[in-house]
Amino acid sequence: MAKINSNYQKLQAGYLFPEIGKRVRAYAAAHPDAKIIRLGIGDVVLPLPEPVLKAMRAAVDEMGKPESFKGYGPEQGYDFLLNAISAHFKSQGAEVAPDEVFVSDGSKCDTANIQEIFDTDNVIAVTDPVYPVYVDTNVMAGRTGMAEGGRYGKLVYMPTTAENGFDPELPKGKTDLIYLCSPNNPTGAVMSRASLEKWVKYAKANEAVILFDAAYEAFIAEKGLVHSIYEIPGAREVAIEFRSLSKTAGFTGTRCAYTVVPKEVMARNDKGEKVPLHSLWNRRQTTKFNGVSYPIQKAAAAIFTPEGEKAIQANIAYYMENAKIIREGLKAAGYTVFGGVNAPYIWLKVPQGLTSWQFFDKLLNDAQVVGTPGSGFGSCGEGYFRLSAFGMRPNVIEAVERIKTRLR
Amino acid sequence: MAKINSNYQKLQAGYLFPEIGKRVRAYAAAHPDAKIIRLGIGDVVLPLPEPVLKAMRAAVDEMGKPESFKGYGPEQGYDFLLNAISAHFKSQGAEVAPDEVFVSDGSKCDTANIQEIFDTDNVIAVTDPVYPVYVDTNVMAGRTGMAEGGRYGKLVYMPTTAENGFDPELPKGKTDLIYLCSPNNPTGAVMSRASLEKWVKYAKANEAVILFDAAYEAFIAEKGLVHSIYEIPGAREVAIEFRSLSKTAGFTGTRCAYTVVPKEVMARNDKGEKVPLHSLWNRRQTTKFNGVSYPIQKAAAAIFTPEGEKAIQANIAYYMENAKIIREGLKAAGYTVFGGVNAPYIWLKVPQGLTSWQFFDKLLNDAQVVGTPGSGFGSCGEGYFRLSAFGMRPNVIEAVERIKTRLR
Repeated sequence: MAKINSNYQKLQAGYLFPEIGKRVRAYAAAHPDAKIIRLGIGDVVLPLPEPVLKAMRAAVDEMGKPESFKGYGPEQGYDFLLNAISAHFKSQGAEVAPDEVFVSDGSKCDTANIQEIFDTDNVIAVTDPVYPVYVDTNVMAGRTGMAEGGRYGKLVYMPTTAENGFDPELPKGKTDLIYLCSPNNPTGAVMSRASLEKWVKYAKANEAVILFDAAYEAFIAEKGLVHSIYEIPGAREVAIEFRSLSKTAGFTGTRCAYTVVPKEVMARNDKGEKVPLHSLWNRRQTTKFNGVSYPIQKAAAAIFTPEGEKAIQANIAYYMENAKIIREGLKAAGYTVFGGVNAPYIWLKVPQGLTSWQFFDKLLNDAQVVGTPGSGFGSCGEGYFRLSAFGMRPNVIEAVERIKTRLR
Repeated sequence: MAKINSNYQKLQAGYLFPEIGKRVRAYAAAHPDAKIIRLGIGDVVLPLPEPVLKAMRAAVDEMGKPESFKGYGPEQGYDFLLNAISAHFKSQGAEVAPDEVFVSDGSKCDTANIQEIFDTDNVIAVTDPVYPVYVDTNVMAGRTGMAEGGRYGKLVYMPTTAENGFDPELPKGKTDLIYLCSPNNPTGAVMSRASLEKWVKYAKANEAVILFDAAYEAFIAEKGLVHSIYEIPGAREVAIEFRSLSKTAGFTGTRCAYTVVPKEVMARNDKGEKVPLHSLWNRRQTTKFNGVSYPIQKAAAAIFTPEGEKAIQANIAYYMENAKIIREGLKAAGYTVFGGVNAPYIWLKVPQGLTSWQFFDKLLNDAQVVGTPGSGFGSCGEGYFRLSAFGMRPNVIEAVERIKTRLR
């Protein structure tokens, strides 16, 4: 008799974004003439830049000729891309060897899959609010226990709210795997160098591993802030870093990301011996993954050329101007607003007396603007709301105008 | 203290293909002038056909314009592709609804990931020889126990050898998850309709789930053989089917596959209640996967057009002519040969007195031909050897000639 993984039944109702999609579809069906502006899911809107298109077209042509056709590639990614990524880290002041980089089809996949190489007994620490994938994939793997009042019994939650400046405090007790995301989704906050130093020190002292999600590092505008955790001395011994081209380069529909597992980072086996996580992740990827499509890897590599870099910086600047418009518009309208300076997310306090989901429905009904309820990211997100800067300029301007005028 | 998933340490030495790669690289380094012919890993060599290239180019152009740019798509795949796949099943006499299809970046990934939705206590049945991914992913998940003499204690192995006509016998006791692959990798055998009916009946009687890998169904040449397990009455209640464009359409480097989870197929939760696997797999994919690249899905859809179908059939015919050349050449040279009629693999008996790996080394050293040792697929594969029909014609002819003349 086949039995299911009953941990799936511990998952809380619908993953956040499908739930938003459902409500928006229902509204659109009931109001077919409404012009809905989507600042919810955080999906890019600008087309792929020309250097990326050019590289992809050339790769498609290669696939059409026997002498340049590519079959199976290395599961970890082609050298041309690994080398470009390694050099990019170097330019940011972080040492990452090409063979420590694993190219994949998405950071969601990598941050979801990474827990597979760890024992089910590890104690998991997450911030609250948190990107739901970190939690849900640990629920599925049986590391969390049951949920009560929106929280799982075995997880350690680290509140990150306005009260502590969105800087997660160290857990009281020991934890084994710590998910950190900076610039943060959803709060838009960036962890300071001092804070990251504190975390690396904690991880070393506790033999913990930091799972560092840097999917939004390219949006850091202020000088002196940390882009890669490997800028912090000692981090190569305790941290795995995830990066994505989804938002950085408009790849949400093109699909490419990469994960760094330094050769020094270790965890212990059931005999207490230290084992390099690099070899485990390599085994995981070679067994369960078959590499990213060749034309997509070629497109990704184009981003690391001077022309590609210039093109994506222009797109990032466009989105960050959107962020500024939202941030300042909402402030002018009397909202308390966070983020949006070094991250494409604006994290706002919902008007008193409303829950996050009530504000979601109000915003959809009154202004036909879609955002993301903060409570969808955890109980400390209740009372907050996320707006994404990924929109076409006229829509962003109109959304802010509608919020100002229709929600009074 | 972070602890690793110690099940990884139960994995047997190197996954088969990396090990082959290692030996071939070592040989090539020591013999830089050798012209090595690779009939090992089973990687396609013919370029993508024009209708596929055309569709991919058009999709790349779409990605370059704001009005047609695509961001996040549905995790399950775009409707245009799901509908085409559903229609393709219909043309083969199998009922599969579009929303029962899950598009992915590879059948290796899907056959590797599917076990995640099942309890770790399920009893797993695999054929011997077997595609290593089925076994290794269950080892990683802790379902197998330790290996002794090449076999894992908790797995149920079903020998498929010349003695039983490569038709796996039903297990004596109860099993819960059964991996079947037809046309078979590595033996090249196709399961008969009667055999599949027997398996569906067994699965129903035991509430087992069949994980049916049909990655090579497009290579079936003889009339009347089963392409989809859903051609068998009742299979929709007990089977999940995996299909791939890798070999079918030359997508090993382009990456696209699909998995069918019918809405009727169920397994029980820890309370003994029946749960549809469709909802579990949907949750798994929406949480841990983000869909296949849009240009790749467009390329995939082109295969299901009349022009695309014609082009890939021409490529398949080319490879199957290779298979015939290998099969008949080896027979003429005195080898006992199986497969190669409805599958792109030729499964041969190695000369007496040699192990599969010894024959591998001999073939590499004497003839500079790379194949795959049967023992790499399981202990019943010992004494067998796999040659793939995926090669350029002149290379295939030369490989056969070398085997005939240099290995006497």
